[in-house]
Amino acid sequence: MDKQMENITIAGAGPVGALLAVMLARQGYRVDLFESRADSRKANIYQGKSINLALSDRGWLALEAVGVGDTIREHAIPMYCRVMHDTQGQLTRLPYGQDEQAIWSVSRAGINEQLISLAEQEPLINIHFEHRLAELDFDSLEARFSTKDSGLVTHNSDLLFGADGTFSKVRRLAQELPRQRISHSLEYMPQSYIELTIEPNADGSHKMEKNALHIWPRKAFMLIALPNTDGSFTCTLFLDQEGDTSFESLDSEEKVTAFFEQNFTDALPLLSNPVDAFMSKAASPLCLVHIYPWVFNNKVGLIGDAAHAMVPFYGQGMNCGFEDCRVLSELVAQHEGNWESILAAYQRERKPNGDAIIELAKRNFVEMSDLSGDSNFLLRKKIEQQFSKMYPELWVPLYSMVTFSPHLPYASALAIGDIQTEIMDEIMQLENIHQEWQSPHVYQLMHKLALAKLEK
Amino acid sequence: MDKQMENITIAGAGPVGALLAVMLARQGYRVDLFESRADSRKANIYQGKSINLALSDRGWLALEAVGVGDTIREHAIPMYCRVMHDTQGQLTRLPYGQDEQAIWSVSRAGINEQLISLAEQEPLINIHFEHRLAELDFDSLEARFSTKDSGLVTHNSDLLFGADGTFSKVRRLAQELPRQRISHSLEYMPQSYIELTIEPNADGSHKMEKNALHIWPRKAFMLIALPNTDGSFTCTLFLDQEGDTSFESLDSEEKVTAFFEQNFTDALPLLSNPVDAFMSKAASPLCLVHIYPWVFNNKVGLIGDAAHAMVPFYGQGMNCGFEDCRVLSELVAQHEGNWESILAAYQRERKPNGDAIIELAKRNFVEMSDLSGDSNFLLRKKIEQQFSKMYPELWVPLYSMVTFSPHLPYASALAIGDIQTEIMDEIMQLENIHQEWQSPHVYQLMHKLALAKLEK
Repeated sequence: MDKQMENITIAGAGPVGALLAVMLARQGYRVDLFESRADSRKANIYQGKSINLALSDRGWLALEAVGVGDTIREHAIPMYCRVMHDTQGQLTRLPYGQDEQAIWSVSRAGINEQLISLAEQEPLINIHFEHRLAELDFDSLEARFSTKDSGLVTHNSDLLFGADGTFSKVRRLAQELPRQRISHSLEYMPQSYIELTIEPNADGSHKMEKNALHIWPRKAFMLIALPNTDGSFTCTLFLDQEGDTSFESLDSEEKVTAFFEQNFTDALPLLSNPVDAFMSKAASPLCLVHIYPWVFNNKVGLIGDAAHAMVPFYGQGMNCGFEDCRVLSELVAQHEGNWESILAAYQRERKPNGDAIIELAKRNFVEMSDLSGDSNFLLRKKIEQQFSKMYPELWVPLYSMVTFSPHLPYASALAIGDIQTEIMDEIMQLENIHQEWQSPHVYQLMHKLALAKLEK
Repeated sequence: MDKQMENITIAGAGPVGALLAVMLARQGYRVDLFESRADSRKANIYQGKSINLALSDRGWLALEAVGVGDTIREHAIPMYCRVMHDTQGQLTRLPYGQDEQAIWSVSRAGINEQLISLAEQEPLINIHFEHRLAELDFDSLEARFSTKDSGLVTHNSDLLFGADGTFSKVRRLAQELPRQRISHSLEYMPQSYIELTIEPNADGSHKMEKNALHIWPRKAFMLIALPNTDGSFTCTLFLDQEGDTSFESLDSEEKVTAFFEQNFTDALPLLSNPVDAFMSKAASPLCLVHIYPWVFNNKVGLIGDAAHAMVPFYGQGMNCGFEDCRVLSELVAQHEGNWESILAAYQRERKPNGDAIIELAKRNFVEMSDLSGDSNFLLRKKIEQQFSKMYPELWVPLYSMVTFSPHLPYASALAIGDIQTEIMDEIMQLENIHQEWQSPHVYQLMHKLALAKLEK
């Protein structure tokens, strides 16, 4: 290890910052982990906001690299399939992958608190809550944090990571650096979201199928529900911020009630006061963040949402951030503590993958909210699943590449997925495909196309 | 006029800020025009940097709206055609439009000083040089400017425009506003640029054809030259910042000399110390800026590069900024000083046009640096010119729509141009088109396609 580089600052103690701290401390670095908010284990900082995340294989791989997979799994619920609810309340089940493959519902607050507690046990980690980054000298790495009681506090280190999320202060300060040619964008999506809740039954059981992610796909908007261990579901309504049917246009209890009655018939009796919640909550925005470079002056790096905020429609935001941590940690070992090389390799390896998953997640809104209810879409999925069982080495469905193939880079998944789409477009042109989709000629053609286009 | 809204601040006294000040003052508003730099008429602030711009019909229309067209024209040189220089020094001439249509070479510093002097004559305008915007309260419109002698100076007004360029402070402050859902991006292009000079002959005459824009198109890079009234040419070399042949890779006098000898044979003996200039100058970046909204709290607006910085390859940056001013000024008259309506209409009308010209300018790098030397490209231009002469109501070439059709919005030019490209792609597929391009069947087909696709 380069002795000049042993003190590391991490701005942001969300799930990514906390995991990164644990990984670096285990590799022998002194880590100061700063968080602008209070310790959520002691103070209720979420104010009725609860977010659930879908943890999948990339996340697990990173968590298992530091041996905390089992601990986290105790509070996670496997979801083996999507359950689509149509406007009549009819259900369609669609497995996420093969056999026992699942994505896991976790509460963001819960996993964050677990990781913070793990970080606290590390002797090399110091956690500073209620320290908000205010200034950073990108040359000397002198950082100033504003605190409630002690005013502006100065902290020096040799390296600094911005794990401070979509509106990262580290990133915003970096953007102001002169002569560094930093390209960056922050884009608001048309949709915003609010959380709603389905409480458990009196006996603590779930009111809908427990081991599933529930979706009410309605094209321009959708409702989803993820299970919690206490029997409740955390639901999220994604809806345009403005326009015809939107958070702005639905401005009275009557309109909102009619909206729920018309679109979410079967969910309405299960949800806790959805109309009140809709009327009283401020909808949260969805953003995409791009920036390049991710590394400044060979000693400041961005990680997680700070580098690549995406929309939640692929359930990959946290998984991607955890993968950033795993890859970085592997590079630390590989380059034996030479941080110029580590950071350069980190940026080279992760930037294209960040871009790819941002793109995949953006596209998946259409898949979740629109195509999920479409018969062509469902047939495509069935044919793909069938072909994938016949030729597992030749065809892994895109969703599985992203979700269940943690050693395949996102950028490769995106590229292969685009070729698969071309092939499936051709297959779906076959005459009577809806009737004959199980006949051998379909899979013979698919095999021929796959060999020609994918085996390069 | 709304008496509540009579004091206007403009941040940035470049050409756009100065013209906007004149327009608003003539409509009865008190304008305070702030500029971070010193008065260039008194101090040499450009330090060897000289930029020439191509003023064209959109710019003239705006200047003529305040009656200053003739004054500006005294220092401008019409360029009727591009003169392309190949690697052997062979020349190809390509007119910009029909007959006497020209774009006009002006020095940025010169036109800026002329507009500042015009602004100074307006009794309602106060100009404050060496006042750098530091803080802005977007509610109260209290602005603070840092000055050399008087420290931080506070100024209050009812409305504020950010005409402060690509790296606009007003925009950067707006981006930090909470809960406003401001999408924004700043993208660095791979190319940077430096200025070079061709001095006049001893008798003050030009060393190359005066009334032309000279281009040395070399695909990945290019040199251009614009004439000045003193007999000199201001040249700009556009080249990748990094990579195989780039500002970074050409790091010795030998390499730079060889680069000029190989690529700019005929220019080399005319240029003043190009190798020294190349070695000693820091290359300037090229950026694209997008932001939405352009208007904040109904009283702060962005204009010019601050709202829509583009690359210089269509010669439209300043023209677009001047058009912003003209349209805004017309809306002021139309909405009788109701600024909420004025600003909403300004944003609605100008944002799509800003996006369109950013896109057109980006695409034009390929046209200038690559296609200009291509025989297919030249043939396309010839066929288009011919058809356009036959059916002037049906076909105005894209370049002419952008440059010589100041009443056609950029967004319409872009949309029509894309349809023209489809049609020309079909025409270029005709057999023996290079031999038979003058035969009637070409123009008959083109007429049929144009009627079908363009006359909707």
